[in-house]
Amino acid sequence: MSDPRAVAAAAEELRAALAPQRVSLDADQLEAFGTDESELGIFPPELVVWPLSAEEVRRVFEVARRHRLPVVPVGARSGKSGGSLAPAGGIALSLERMDRILEVNVEDSTARVQPGVILSRFQAEVERRGLFYPPDPNSLDLCTLGGNVAENAGGPRAVKYGVTREYVLGLEVVLPTGEILRTGKRTVKGVAGYDLTALLVGSEGTLGVVTEITVRLIPRPRHVSTALVTFRTVEDAARAVSRVLAAGVLPRCLELLDDVALAACARTAPYKFPPDAGAALLVETDGNDEEQVFGEIVRVAELVRGEAAGEVIVAQDESQRRAIWETRKYLSNNLKALHPHKLSEDIAVPRSRIPEMVRISREIGRRHGFLVSTYGHAGDGNLHNNVLYDRPDERPRVEAVVAEILRAAVDLGGTITGEHGVGLAKRDFLEYEQGPELVALQRRLKALFDPEGLLNPGKMFPAKGSPGLPRKGEGNGALP
Amino acid sequence: MSDPRAVAAAAEELRAALAPQRVSLDADQLEAFGTDESELGIFPPELVVWPLSAEEVRRVFEVARRHRLPVVPVGARSGKSGGSLAPAGGIALSLERMDRILEVNVEDSTARVQPGVILSRFQAEVERRGLFYPPDPNSLDLCTLGGNVAENAGGPRAVKYGVTREYVLGLEVVLPTGEILRTGKRTVKGVAGYDLTALLVGSEGTLGVVTEITVRLIPRPRHVSTALVTFRTVEDAARAVSRVLAAGVLPRCLELLDDVALAACARTAPYKFPPDAGAALLVETDGNDEEQVFGEIVRVAELVRGEAAGEVIVAQDESQRRAIWETRKYLSNNLKALHPHKLSEDIAVPRSRIPEMVRISREIGRRHGFLVSTYGHAGDGNLHNNVLYDRPDERPRVEAVVAEILRAAVDLGGTITGEHGVGLAKRDFLEYEQGPELVALQRRLKALFDPEGLLNPGKMFPAKGSPGLPRKGEGNGALP
Repeated sequence: MSDPRAVAAAAEELRAALAPQRVSLDADQLEAFGTDESELGIFPPELVVWPLSAEEVRRVFEVARRHRLPVVPVGARSGKSGGSLAPAGGIALSLERMDRILEVNVEDSTARVQPGVILSRFQAEVERRGLFYPPDPNSLDLCTLGGNVAENAGGPRAVKYGVTREYVLGLEVVLPTGEILRTGKRTVKGVAGYDLTALLVGSEGTLGVVTEITVRLIPRPRHVSTALVTFRTVEDAARAVSRVLAAGVLPRCLELLDDVALAACARTAPYKFPPDAGAALLVETDGNDEEQVFGEIVRVAELVRGEAAGEVIVAQDESQRRAIWETRKYLSNNLKALHPHKLSEDIAVPRSRIPEMVRISREIGRRHGFLVSTYGHAGDGNLHNNVLYDRPDERPRVEAVVAEILRAAVDLGGTITGEHGVGLAKRDFLEYEQGPELVALQRRLKALFDPEGLLNPGKMFPAKGSPGLPRKGEGNGALP
Repeated sequence: MSDPRAVAAAAEELRAALAPQRVSLDADQLEAFGTDESELGIFPPELVVWPLSAEEVRRVFEVARRHRLPVVPVGARSGKSGGSLAPAGGIALSLERMDRILEVNVEDSTARVQPGVILSRFQAEVERRGLFYPPDPNSLDLCTLGGNVAENAGGPRAVKYGVTREYVLGLEVVLPTGEILRTGKRTVKGVAGYDLTALLVGSEGTLGVVTEITVRLIPRPRHVSTALVTFRTVEDAARAVSRVLAAGVLPRCLELLDDVALAACARTAPYKFPPDAGAALLVETDGNDEEQVFGEIVRVAELVRGEAAGEVIVAQDESQRRAIWETRKYLSNNLKALHPHKLSEDIAVPRSRIPEMVRISREIGRRHGFLVSTYGHAGDGNLHNNVLYDRPDERPRVEAVVAEILRAAVDLGGTITGEHGVGLAKRDFLEYEQGPELVALQRRLKALFDPEGLLNPGKMFPAKGSPGLPRKGEGNGALP
């Protein structure tokens, strides 16, 4: 934590540099800024500021450098990896008031937004004009585009449409050194210089603070068809995924639910699942031709029928479609009804390893006495493994389960994070996946952008003095 | 150029470290390696090596560091910006013998290749298995995947499918310092750490030498439909592009030809164009349902009919489809029949500025006494402006035309390069587009990867001691 005199002096200077009402030392507010959706605990900042422009962000850095205070950029605090928490205290730099949609250019299919714009609001705005911005993290009614850029947010539609990076053309960014830069381009194509935009997307607020985002948009598909298929086992469901893709069908969503998830869904689902159902796929196709889109979902249904456990439910209208999605949407809450706590992981494995990964997660959980439920974006191998537990004091044992799951994902050729980011939650696992040389190069890159180490310290990289984990292939089987 | 004794000593050591027959000092070979498709002149290396592995690339750097010789990675020399030329001499590191397709994994929809694999060979291999790798630069029968990664290659299909970066999941790369790193992931999704893969793609062989590439593949669309539509003016054609996209149709190609290009095409085209045709669009749709794909091209035809100058030619079979594409394919040669020389530019502008950009290019050419013909990927605003000329001694004046065109593109909110890269050809224009601060940051990034400045020196960044161009908005109208 910082010297209280430095914090007080910084608050004073920030009130003058920004506006008194946009600087807060209020204890309740600090505590609120100390949590996000990672459930890692409370890591409050010592000061909160709400700048309104790149220039004001620059001034925040000026004050922070003078008093050597950490700066943590904060969006909607809907992150799952603790990226907006302040483990070293310092200044929480909230971008929530920079929330204007600056331009939606229909002719060029581009838009410019400030980082505090809420994703679903932006999507509604562009869809109203016949355009489409595909990334759809589950938190879309809360999360901001700035946060999406920081974390390179994905979502179910990524299997067809890709993730946030595929849509960001250019950024305005303020570096901790005070430079205000415009990276990238306003055109859909462009290869001049190094792609700093691509580097900044997904850098988890550790290289600079993004103050404006230019994205490309695509035509909005006019029709969507949705189906829910149950299977006897996860293996059957995974085989169905491969069969659909091998048949040349690229659905816009291919969501997997395992038996535990399915049982949880059954609590509120408007359907009766067959008694022998041990997994399900939620499949969605889209396009401009209604018949063709519906025809494609019927084709998917035919392709998987042989492995299905019962009826294939194809939504016949929008209300049935919504009902299917609600099955998925309330899943997290329904799991909590089974066990009041859960720790949700976010690995990705090559698609062919999904059944193995689901089975291994389950076994790891069982060995430690916990139920693990896996669901996620099967189309791109991105799985959310949820360790369910009953009491907060079980948390350390739950974390041991998670550690084994992350390591198993890497051992299967996968990654410790498919879409949630490393943040505070997984920094001690990065080296296991990437090795010390690659992490060392990234630390040097970090130092290039942030030589004084003031921006979002303690995130992404192994904590200093951390013993680190054995590297892949060097392990001894015993994890901390 | 280097000290001849250093070159001789390096050759000796490389023969021992690799194999005698994979090191060449042969004058003809050096001269061949001194040219590419940029027509910038002859910039030969002093030595050529053909490594077979990352370990051998590491050894090349070891020798290069010892003798302080530049190292220039070379693919197929089909580049248009001089990225593989050796303006400072040194070692040409050819990757053409690392040409193995290591793995095509149908179930995971991924592939691993060495950098020397020729693009069309790779595409044929994956398409045979029902998969699809969309990037399609015009040089696809020559160019290598390593070169595509270095330049972030695009092509006509980028409007729907994006460019090389959208498909590269991970890389094996050898840094000039000798580190052999594996960046990225083998899964379709993954956000662990900074995206060094995205940074390396398009870095034009200035940060490291890529020795293995992991790409994602998508299902191969089973049907394609193609149409050629002529218009009275480029403005009409550009309006048609916007109309098609606004109607929610996303063709896989949307290629524009201006009147000069159309006249050149007419020399070999199997069609008669209407006498008042002043522009054309080549449109292609794809998908899995034959009827729907054909229906979509018919829909495009209907959408643009009002503005069309004559018949809309919709290919009724594969031979008609091939005939339409040959119109485009021979364009470059046909233009050379009008004037024996041409300098082809590669700008991108926001789509709405296409008519203005075509008009301005034409005017700039006229002012200097040259005909400028523009064609390109209208769907993403990527235009190739071709300055046609008759004699090599006109080249300096042609370059003055190009300088004005590049500057005009930036002034319209565009970029100096849509897909060909900066290389040697446009390094003095990078600051005009990006400003000195952003270029300075990129120079620091370059130094992080290549502290001794041995890898591909003289590329991308303004030459040292170059006066530089006035920055956007600071110009005085007079360009060097």
